[in-house]
Order: sequence, then C-alpha cells, then structure tokens
Amino acid sequence: MPGLMRKDGRGPSDIRPLSIRSGYVSYAEGSALVELGQTRVLVNVSLTDGVPRHVSGREGWLMAEYNLLPRSTKDRKERERQKLSGRTAEIQRFLGRAFRAVLDLSLLPNKTVVIDADVIQADGGTRVASLLGGYAALHIAMDRMVNLGKIDEWPLTEFAAVSVGWLGPGPQGQDQLLLDLSQGEDEAAWADLTVVATQSGDLIEVHGAGEGHTIPKAIYYRMLELGLEMVPQLVRLTHNQLRASVS
Amino acid sequence: MPGLMRKDGRGPSDIRPLSIRSGYVSYAEGSALVELGQTRVLVNVSLTDGVPRHVSGREGWLMAEYNLLPRSTKDRKERERQKLSGRTAEIQRFLGRAFRAVLDLSLLPNKTVVIDADVIQADGGTRVASLLGGYAALHIAMDRMVNLGKIDEWPLTEFAAVSVGWLGPGPQGQDQLLLDLSQGEDEAAWADLTVVATQSGDLIEVHGAGEGHTIPKAIYYRMLELGLEMVPQLVRLTHNQLRASVS
Amino acid sequence: MPGLMRKDGRGPSDIRPLSIRSGYVSYAEGSALVELGQTRVLVNVSLTDGVPRHVSGREGWLMAEYNLLPRSTKDRKERERQKLSGRTAEIQRFLGRAFRAVLDLSLLPNKTVVIDADVIQADGGTRVASLLGGYAALHIAMDRMVNLGKIDEWPLTEFAAVSVGWLGPGPQGQDQLLLDLSQGEDEAAWADLTVVATQSGDLIEVHGAGEGHTIPKAIYYRMLELGLEMVPQLVRLTHNQLRASVS
Amino acid sequence: MPGLMRKDGRGPSDIRPLSIRSGYVSYAEGSALVELGQTRVLVNVSLTDGVPRHVSGREGWLMAEYNLLPRSTKDRKERERQKLSGRTAEIQRFLGRAFRAVLDLSLLPNKTVVIDADVIQADGGTRVASLLGGYAALHIAMDRMVNLGKIDEWPLTEFAAVSVGWLGPGPQGQDQLLLDLSQGEDEAAWADLTVVATQSGDLIEVHGAGEGHTIPKAIYYRMLELGLEMVPQLVRLTHNQLRASVS
Amino acid sequence: MPGLMRKDGRGPSDIRPLSIRSGYVSYAEGSALVELGQTRVLVNVSLTDGVPRHVSGREGWLMAEYNLLPRSTKDRKERERQKLSGRTAEIQRFLGRAFRAVLDLSLLPNKTVVIDADVIQADGGTRVASLLGGYAALHIAMDRMVNLGKIDEWPLTEFAAVSVGWLGPGPQGQDQLLLDLSQGEDEAAWADLTVVATQSGDLIEVHGAGEGHTIPKAIYYRMLELGLEMVPQLVRLTHNQLRASVS
Amino acid sequence: MPGLMRKDGRGPSDIRPLSIRSGYVSYAEGSALVELGQTRVLVNVSLTDGVPRHVSGREGWLMAEYNLLPRSTKDRKERERQKLSGRTAEIQRFLGRAFRAVLDLSLLPNKTVVIDADVIQADGGTRVASLLGGYAALHIAMDRMVNLGKIDEWPLTEFAAVSVGWLGPGPQGQDQLLLDLSQGEDEAAWADLTVVATQSGDLIEVHGAGEGHTIPKAIYYRMLELGLEMVPQLVRLTHNQLRASVS
Repeated sequence: MPGLMRKDGRGPSDIRPLSIRSGYVSYAEGSALVELGQTRVLVNVSLTDGVPRHVSGREGWLMAEYNLLPRSTKDRKERERQKLSGRTAEIQRFLGRAFRAVLDLSLLPNKTVVIDADVIQADGGTRVASLLGGYAALHIAMDRMVNLGKIDEWPLTEFAAVSVGWLGPGPQGQDQLLLDLSQGEDEAAWADLTVVATQSGDLIEVHGAGEGHTIPKAIYYRMLELGLEMVPQLVRLTHNQLRASVS
Repeated sequence: MPGLMRKDGRGPSDIRPLSIRSGYVSYAEGSALVELGQTRVLVNVSLTDGVPRHVSGREGWLMAEYNLLPRSTKDRKERERQKLSGRTAEIQRFLGRAFRAVLDLSLLPNKTVVIDADVIQADGGTRVASLLGGYAALHIAMDRMVNLGKIDEWPLTEFAAVSVGWLGPGPQGQDQLLLDLSQGEDEAAWADLTVVATQSGDLIEVHGAGEGHTIPKAIYYRMLELGLEMVPQLVRLTHNQLRASVS
Repeated sequence: MPGLMRKDGRGPSDIRPLSIRSGYVSYAEGSALVELGQTRVLVNVSLTDGVPRHVSGREGWLMAEYNLLPRSTKDRKERERQKLSGRTAEIQRFLGRAFRAVLDLSLLPNKTVVIDADVIQADGGTRVASLLGGYAALHIAMDRMVNLGKIDEWPLTEFAAVSVGWLGPGPQGQDQLLLDLSQGEDEAAWADLTVVATQSGDLIEVHGAGEGHTIPKAIYYRMLELGLEMVPQLVRLTHNQLRASVS
Repeated sequence: MPGLMRKDGRGPSDIRPLSIRSGYVSYAEGSALVELGQTRVLVNVSLTDGVPRHVSGREGWLMAEYNLLPRSTKDRKERERQKLSGRTAEIQRFLGRAFRAVLDLSLLPNKTVVIDADVIQADGGTRVASLLGGYAALHIAMDRMVNLGKIDEWPLTEFAAVSVGWLGPGPQGQDQLLLDLSQGEDEAAWADLTVVATQSGDLIEVHGAGEGHTIPKAIYYRMLELGLEMVPQLVRLTHNQLRASVS
Repeated sequence: MPGLMRKDGRGPSDIRPLSIRSGYVSYAEGSALVELGQTRVLVNVSLTDGVPRHVSGREGWLMAEYNLLPRSTKDRKERERQKLSGRTAEIQRFLGRAFRAVLDLSLLPNKTVVIDADVIQADGGTRVASLLGGYAALHIAMDRMVNLGKIDEWPLTEFAAVSVGWLGPGPQGQDQLLLDLSQGEDEAAWADLTVVATQSGDLIEVHGAGEGHTIPKAIYYRMLELGLEMVPQLVRLTHNQLRASVS
Repeated sequence: MPGLMRKDGRGPSDIRPLSIRSGYVSYAEGSALVELGQTRVLVNVSLTDGVPRHVSGREGWLMAEYNLLPRSTKDRKERERQKLSGRTAEIQRFLGRAFRAVLDLSLLPNKTVVIDADVIQADGGTRVASLLGGYAALHIAMDRMVNLGKIDEWPLTEFAAVSVGWLGPGPQGQDQLLLDLSQGEDEAAWADLTVVATQSGDLIEVHGAGEGHTIPKAIYYRMLELGLEMVPQLVRLTHNQLRASVS
C-alpha cells in the first residue's frame, strides 16, 4: 500500500509510539501506565487470598474491569453507576478471557487476580493498551511472587494484541488495511478487529466485526495475518519497557 | 474424522434438527420459535416509530435483547433484575451488531427495530438459534412492510450462523472439530467459535475464543472454514421453514 | 342472559379452550405450557434443597415469580430490570399465597419450591392460566417426589381459578356477568374478580375490584357464585390434560 | 359469640378507639394523623397540576404510596431503598384502586393526587388506618378546592374499611370471627380480610386471604357481612373526627 | 442588634419553642418526637445485638439515618428509593459522627445502635432537631440499659446543637447574625453553620458554609461564639423536657 | 513544637511537595494532575452548554464528582456502582460548595461546569489535592474562555485548602498540631479539619471533626489559625506551577 499516508504521518503498518511506565501506583501488586500514542490507560493488578464461592479451590480466579474516566473521551461521559454499558461489559469479558488464556491459574491456587484498566485518555486502541498494560502489570506481580518464593513455575505466557482496520476499497479499488487505529481512523473504518495472540503465533481471541458492513473472506484473512505479524514485535517492545522501568 | 461418534449419534459436521415456527406470538411484527435440537428460543421483532434521541433521523435503529428464562438451564437461574450479567450484555452486543450488518437501516428511516430473544431451553447454541430465529422474524416483519407498501427495496441480507468447537487433540493426535455443539460438548471443548456469515460467504462476525486455551493458527483457520461451509445450507433450511410456515 | 354473544362466539358462562402441555421444559422438576384461548403462559416448578434463612426448617418454602415477556402484549413492554411494576409484584404475592394455601409445606421440610410463570402471550386471564399451569406443574413435580419415595403423603389440594367480569348494566338494564374475560372484555368491564377455590368449594382468594367503580353487594355475590360454580369443571379439565400428556 | 374476650378487653365485634387529627402537616393540601388503638399512620394528600404522560388529560390521576417507618415494627425494618417489598407494592396498588373508586377524577382534570401513608407505629390494621386517614385527608383537600371555587361538584364518595379475621374453630367448635385485628390477633388468624365499602353498602374491594388455610364459603360470606355492617358506623366516626378538628 | 425583628417576633438570639415528647413510638428502645417551632422530627433509637462484620468486637457500632417524609417540605419530594441524595448522605454522615463523639461505644461492646431521624415537617433546623431528639432518645435507651444492669457506667456526654446564620451586612452596614433559622431565614442567609458542642464547651462539629459566599474570618468566629453560648441552655431545656415526659 | 519529627522528615507545619501538571488530559476544557507527596489526583473540568432543568437560566451551574480508583488505596476498593458511599457523597457536596463559592456563575450564564476529581493514589489529603487541582483546572478553563472572548470579567477567586490535624496531647502534655496529614497521620489523629479559604483570608468551608473525640475550643481555634496561615503560600505555589506548565 505505498502512497497511503495517515494523519499522524504513519505508514499503514506502523503502530504508534508505545510507552509503559511500571509501578505507577505503588499500592498495587502490579501497576503500569501505558501510552499508545495519545491513548493512556492505567492498569493495576491486585492479588488477594481466597476465591469467589463458585470457584473450585484448586485453581485461582481472574477477572478484569474496564472503565472510561469521564473526560477520557471528547465529550464528557457519565460514570457508569447504576449499570454498565453493553460496551464496557463486553470489553471486560474480552479482557478477562484473554488474561485467563495466558495466566496459568493452577499455579495460583486460592488466589484472586483482579485487573483494573482505567482509561485516562481514549484515542483508539484502549483494548489493546489494556492488554499490553495488563501483561506488564501481571509480569511485575508474578515477578514479585517468584521473588517471594510463592510460585516456582513461571505462570504467564508471552502475548500481545493489536488492532487492524479495513477502510474499504480505496480510490484505486485496492483494499486499505491499517494497523493500530486512532479514534478518527476507527470511526472511518468499515471493519475493525483486535487480534490477540501469543508470541509463538497461537490465537487467543479475535474480537470485533464490521459495524454495518460484512467482510469479504479474503479481507478477513489478510486482517488476521497483518495482526499476527505484528504480535512478536509488540511482545519485544513491552519487554524492553519493562526492563527499562526496572533498571 | 471417521469413527468419531457424538452422544446423539451425529457425525462431527452434522447439525441438529432445526425447526422454525413462524408467527408464534401474534402481537409481534415478526415472531419465530426456533428449535435446534433441545435448544428452544423465542425471537420476536418489534417495529415502532421513532428512534432514540442519540440517533440521527435519516436512519432507523436496531437493538437486540437476550434473556435466559429461569428454568432454561439445568439449575434455576435468578432473573437478571438489578443488572445484566456480563455474558448477557456481551451476547446482546453481538446479536445487535450482527443484525445491523444485514439489515439496511437506511431503508427504515425513523423506525426502531427491537429483537427479543428469550431462551426457553438452553442446550447449547442459543446464540445461533437467536440469530436464525431473528433472521426469520425479521423476514416476516419486512415482508409485511413490503406488502403494506412501506418499503420498496428488500432490506435484509441472507445470512446464517453456526458454532464450531475444537475438542483438542484426539486419541490418535488428530484435532477434533465439531459443528453445532450441544451444552455437554460445549463444556468439554477447548475452544468454541460462533461463525456468522452471509449466504455469499462474507463474514459478519466471528465470536468466541478458547476459554483457558490458546488456539493454533491452523486450527483456527480450519474452524472458520468448517463454519463457513455450513452457512449456505443453513440459509436454505431457514427459508424452507419460513415457506412451510406460511403455506 | 340470553342474547348476549361474545366476539369469539362464546356464551357468557363459557370459558375459552384450555390446553396444558406437560413437561414442556425438560430441565424443570415440573413444567406446563398453558393455552387459554390466545393467552399462553409457561409455568415451571423448581425444587431445591434448603430454605431461606428467615424460614424455620420444619417446613418448606414456596414463592412465585410472574413475568410478561416483552412482546406478550400488544405494544412491546420494557423488561422489568431495575424494579418490578406494582402490578407484577401484586400478582406474584397473589400467586404465592394461593399456592401456599394448597401445598402442604410441612410435607416438604427443608425444600424450596419456586414457581415461574412467564407469559408468552397475554390475551386476558394470565393470572388464571398461571394458577392452572402452576397446579399442573406442581402435580408433575409432586408425582416425581412420590415416585422417588421422597414423600409418602400427597401434599397438593385440588383447586382451580377463573375470572368473572361485570360489564355494568346492559341495554335492558340487566347486569351482564361474563366468565373468563379476554383482554378486550377485561378493558370494558366495570369490575373483574379472579376467584380461586378448591374442588370442594372452599375459597382460597378472591382478587380484584372494580377499577373506578364500586360493586353492588348483590352483584359481588353473584360474581362469586358464578366463579365458584366453574371451579370443579376446571379441576376436571386440568386433570384430563395432565393424564393426556402422560400417556 | 358471647364469652369470647380479647386481650384488650374488646368484644369480637368491637373496633379499637379511633382518633383522627386533621391538618397534622401544614404543607400538605390534606393531612391526617390516624390512631386506631396503638396503630398510628400519617396520611398526606398532595395535589399538583399536570398528569403523567400516559394519562389522558381529560381526567386527573391518583396514586398512593405506603411506607413503614423503620421502627414502626417490633424489630427495626430496613428502609426500602433499592426496591419495594412485595407487601408494600401490593398495599400501594390496593390503596390506589380503592381511592380511585371513590374519587371522581373527571372532576379534577389535569390534576395529580398523591396519597402518602407513612406508618409510624404498626399494631395491625395499617391498611384500614391508611384508608380512613386518606379519606379524611382527601376530604380536607377537596373542601379546600370547593372553597377556592376550583370544583363545583363534590367528588368524594363516603366509604370506610375494616379488617375481619377468622380464628378457626373455637373450643366448642363454633367459628370465631373478630373485627379490627391487632397485630397479635392477625398473626393468630387463619384468614384475614380487609373489607372496603361505601356508606351505601357497595363493595370497593375485598382484600386478603387465608395464609396457609382455605376458607369455607359460609365463613367467607359471614366475614364479608360482618365487615359490611361496620362500615356505616366507621364513616360516621370519621366525619365526627373531621368536624371536631375543624371547629 | 437592636431593632432587628424576625417574622415570628423573635429577637436575633432567640430560639424557637422546643418540645420533646419522649417515648412517642413504643417499640423503639428510645424514641422522641421533637418540635422546634414548626419543624417536627421523629427520632428513634434501635439497639440490637451484634455489629457489622467490618467492626472489631470490642466496641459497639452506631449509625444514623435521616429521611424527609414526602410532604415534610412545601412541595412534595419523591422518596429516595434508588439512591440517596447528596444532601441526605451528607447529613447522615454528620449525624453519625456527632453521636459517635458523645456515646462511649466501648461501654456497649457487640451492640449496634441505629438512630433514625424521620422529618415530618421541615421548617429549617432539621439537623438540629435530629441531634436534640437523638440525644433524648439515646438518653432514654441508655437509662433502660442502666436499669437493666447491662451497663454500669453512664456512656453519654451532654451536648446540644444550634444553627447560626449570617444574613450579610444590614442596612446600616452592621453584620446580622441570627440563631436557629427558620426555612425562610435559611434561604435568605449568606452563610449557615450548625454548631454542635458539649455542655462543657468542647466542639463536636461545625458544619456548613456560605453557599455562594465566602465568610470573613471575624464573622466566622462570631458565629461560632454565638452558637457555643447557646449550647448549655439547650442542654438544660432538653433535660427539662426529658424529666417532664417521665414524671 | 520543636522536637516533633514526622516519619517523612517534615516539621509539624511543613506541607509535602506539591506538583501540578497542567493539561494532562487534552480533551478536557481544563485538566490538572496533582501530586501532593504520594497522593495523586487527576482533576478535569468540563464546560458544556445548558443547565439542568431545576436551575434558572441566568446563572451557570457547577457540580463536582469525586472518585477513588480501585487501587488508589492499600486494599482494593470495589467501584461504587450501585450507590455512592456516604463518604464519597459527602466529599462531592463539600467540593461542589467550595467551587461554587469561588466561581462567579453569573458570569457563565447557561453553562454547566463539571469538576471530576479521580484519585489515582490516596496517601491522605485527597480533598485538598482535589481542591488545588480543581482550582488549577478551572483557571485553565477560564483562561481559555477569556482568550475566546466568551467572558470579559475574571470569574475565579484565588483560594487554597489544607488539612490540619490534632494528635491529642503529646508526651509533655502539649497539644500536637500537624499540617497536611499523610494517610498514616490521619489515622492516628484525634481530629482532622480541612480548611478552605481565600487568598485574602475569608473562610469558604471548614470541614471535618474529631472522630470519636470532642475538640477543646482553644485547640479548634488554633487549628483554624494554622490552616489559614498556610493558605496564601499554597495559592502562590499553585500559581507558580500553572505558570511553569504553560511556559
């Protein structure tokens, strides 16, 4: 796709600058402030003893909460007091499933892991930033567990996530695919997938759809491939940031 | 996968008997009682004038609600009064997106379409049954609109859905894939996708993931293909049932 | 009242066709789909171990829930999420009291019985259909208990219910009374009672009033008598349907 | 029933001392503090312009609220914040229907009448006290409307209410009926009706049932008659109290 | 401030007539109906065994609830069902803190004290009336505990409260301060403090502020002093009323 | 109080390092990230057209929301979904009143100002940090209004806030007062006031009390004075930070 230039100067397959500040909140067992371009998400991991009643005691339990702060969006959004929006509920389910797929809860018996992703500024990609920040915060929390001698096997699988957009056919008829959509690009896209996968290329979840559009099979497969190709690079970036924070 | 036999005698790629009873509730603009094996879902379409305030008047609006009746499940489930479960919220979002992808709302200006899927008995595949029933009920409601001369272009794209499960590697190491999982098969599966696609093979949404497992890319692609192959047959089945009900 | 003919051709004291399909939902301990004319109610009985904390352990506990599905009514009714309507709460109390009067809970120590009446289509008489269906579903559940040797005394008293309407004075001044009102007749009535009584003629509850009208004592007594006369016939009808379903 | 003596010395057909203090709250359009023995209920009538959207403008609208203060009962009762109990909802419906039957709302076009019954001390008969107090408070509010020249026809029908209990067969086998049950008598009763009727003997509503008991038809009729006989006396008592307050 | 005359004829430092009727509700462990001019508040104290889980067992626990009845105000106020208003929540916190400062909960181990202040008529000063009534009702409840031999040390510190208003500079420029504001005075005030203090002059809490105005330091101090001077007199008045009720 | 040394090395009247990062969230009309020692609060100001229905159109409207993020505290705190805690409600009222006292809303007709204070890390003084951050964010938002020519008079009064604690009598009997309490100091204090005042020394609000202790009048006055002395310095510090951010 030569010639396609994005508003912020990126090429179609470029992701925005990624910064992860570890240990931003000192009370949390793991904490990371993620910046992906203008998107900014605070992710905290809490580790507590005990599991909910409906969980068998042999394994630990993990759940995720996602929250937009009122001015994370262009117009102020009311806090979700009485009930969650469908969007929030859906993202929480998605995050929880993804983290449960990469954290071996059998190594954390009788522990509850809560991952709180609070979006401070939302310029597209808040799911991706929540996953990257959650990975970093889980890494910190698990490191601590290992150092305290509370687990002896590393429980976390390396993974990353990225969004892929299809902007429909371009002026010359070729289909335009973009990685890591900003809010403006997201609103213009015909379809938008979040691809979550392991370092070794296994899929964890593919989330999203074409809002109001169906997606030709060939496009869908190309979107998947484009996302999968970016994952290993994102895993490396995250690890670099984690190392930088520590040293 | 010869040799693999399912509890109810089906082969791996067989779906359960499908029955759609049109017009089950006479007040609704469109109504269908779907039976997919032991799963039974009542889907009603309501068409009303006006759209919510946040919607621009040029287009119509569509939303979906999903609800498990208390004894649709093996153990009685409390009604979701104070708040929706995450699962319900997620399914409602999924259904709404799918129906909006296939119904051209620009042909229904200033109309609100509500699709209610109430699950009477849940033996796996309630999402699929909700989609098939919703298609049938929308078909009935749109037929009526055409007959009343209220729309002159057919607004509904033919589509269907099916679930595909991966049961992990079998005894001889080969990977076992199944179509249209019952509740018992669903609980045993390593991963479970709901594939929603048009008659012509375009994807509408691929929903689901491997709960606690990651999915090798090759398996993921085979699951997609298996689901996509079944869609045209399901569209035909649905149409046959619609015709049978009418005549 | 000769000469009075109802829209559906019934005479004043005729009830609508009654059909009870036993075992409609296979998970429930007792289940019945009741059709009373165009009114259709699904009633499920759930039997679980344990009683709420506020109940003494010597007796069992019974409670009833009543719910209109969104398109059971002419216009779509929002689901009662945040709070129950007064009407629903009142009907639930009424159903619970009636069932507690006829089920000997001392024979079901430490058991909780929940009766769910979900209205699929509401053309008047949903209370009556809920009571008839609840009786049938309780019968099935108690039969099972007896067969499993868990109770040795039959705990259920035979009863039935019917609605009686007063349409005010007719053209010749005579007062018009109708049995088993449809929705349209209900809206036209000056008063409407639901008479619940045992096979042997004892009263369980008389529910209802004249909305906006007071009822002359003589009319009130005639309404009671008319309802009471119909009860034994309804008990027989219900039993016939139960037998037919089983064989 | 000679020989039957009640704890407070009353005969079976005696009601407790009734006192109605008019104008207890000066802000309300009508206000009455009712004492029926140890039961004490504050009833306020609010009259405002406008009716809810779902009401046609030709008539006014009336609704009733009922509330137990936390220490109106022997043990402290939590305030009903998140949702109403079924009992409260049922009583509110009952009160609303009764008042709508006796207040001609066509004479109050575009007015909303709200009747708040707040129970300060509950020793049985709170429904009855709410109805008597509501009648008094409505009388005051309507008097004011007449004096202001806002209505020229008297809109309120004279009525009263009383509770009747059946204590089951007594030691000599005769059935024991009591009027105006205290809390202790209520708990001992096999059945309990609230009879609401006009001065002229028309029925407005008969509320209640035998909790856990069915009621022989002959008993039910005697209970009705006993209640109906007391109504005219109660109407006179209420009017006497109203006159006494004013002068 | 000679020359300043209030609508009801009081001088600036006069409080309204205070009446406390002890034992108004007989079920409560302590009960007082307070009238402060036209303001009327019912305060009940409930004493129960056990403390909430988050409280250590060595001490008792106290909490306060405050509630405006719907017609305690000029216009009818909706009951606070789904959530408390900020005003109510704030007053409840304020009352709870004040009572905890004067009741020695270490003398009431494993007891929960609930203080319910229900406002029947609100003409300004409902906080003050709630505090005075709460003191009286606590006094009654503690007296009973002493008489039953359940505590041997008197746990309640003598205290009282009063409101002080600043009406801004008067016509001659002098600042006008008023004690015990009525509703009308409250609405006209530039600032309004509730001063809560012990008999011996220690401060318990100073609540309130200048709504829309800042308060010069000298004025603030004069308001405090004016309030503090009145407290001992109010303690005496309350004790007089308590004695009068008992004898 | 020489000799008294605090854990973090501060003297009794020293405040912690204060940092204000302006414009942290770019969508908000005004935004400030405040750090007061380890306490970190994000404050955003939103300015929208229109006012709530109950507000007269001549003035603008202002309200404040306060929220603890789940891991802002040592142990994870559940999000306040269904209802606000009393503490949160009280702080919101307090913040709203303070900001309304210093912002001249008559200069912002038909505008709604919402101030969101989200606590990221809570080490004592979150109220103070919310007020300082709110002042900064309001300053930014008003600057913008002036620059856009939408207001021509500066509407914001310079103010600041600080907490003052009383730790009870020290070892030599002298009373220990501390400024700007950390969380640990707060929990040890006998009383804790938040003093809010203008640059010129007028009081806006004095919030807080002695939890479980009464405060001798002399101590209360010294606490007030200590707080008031610090206010001008805090106003200067805030302005310095604002200037530093801009340049």
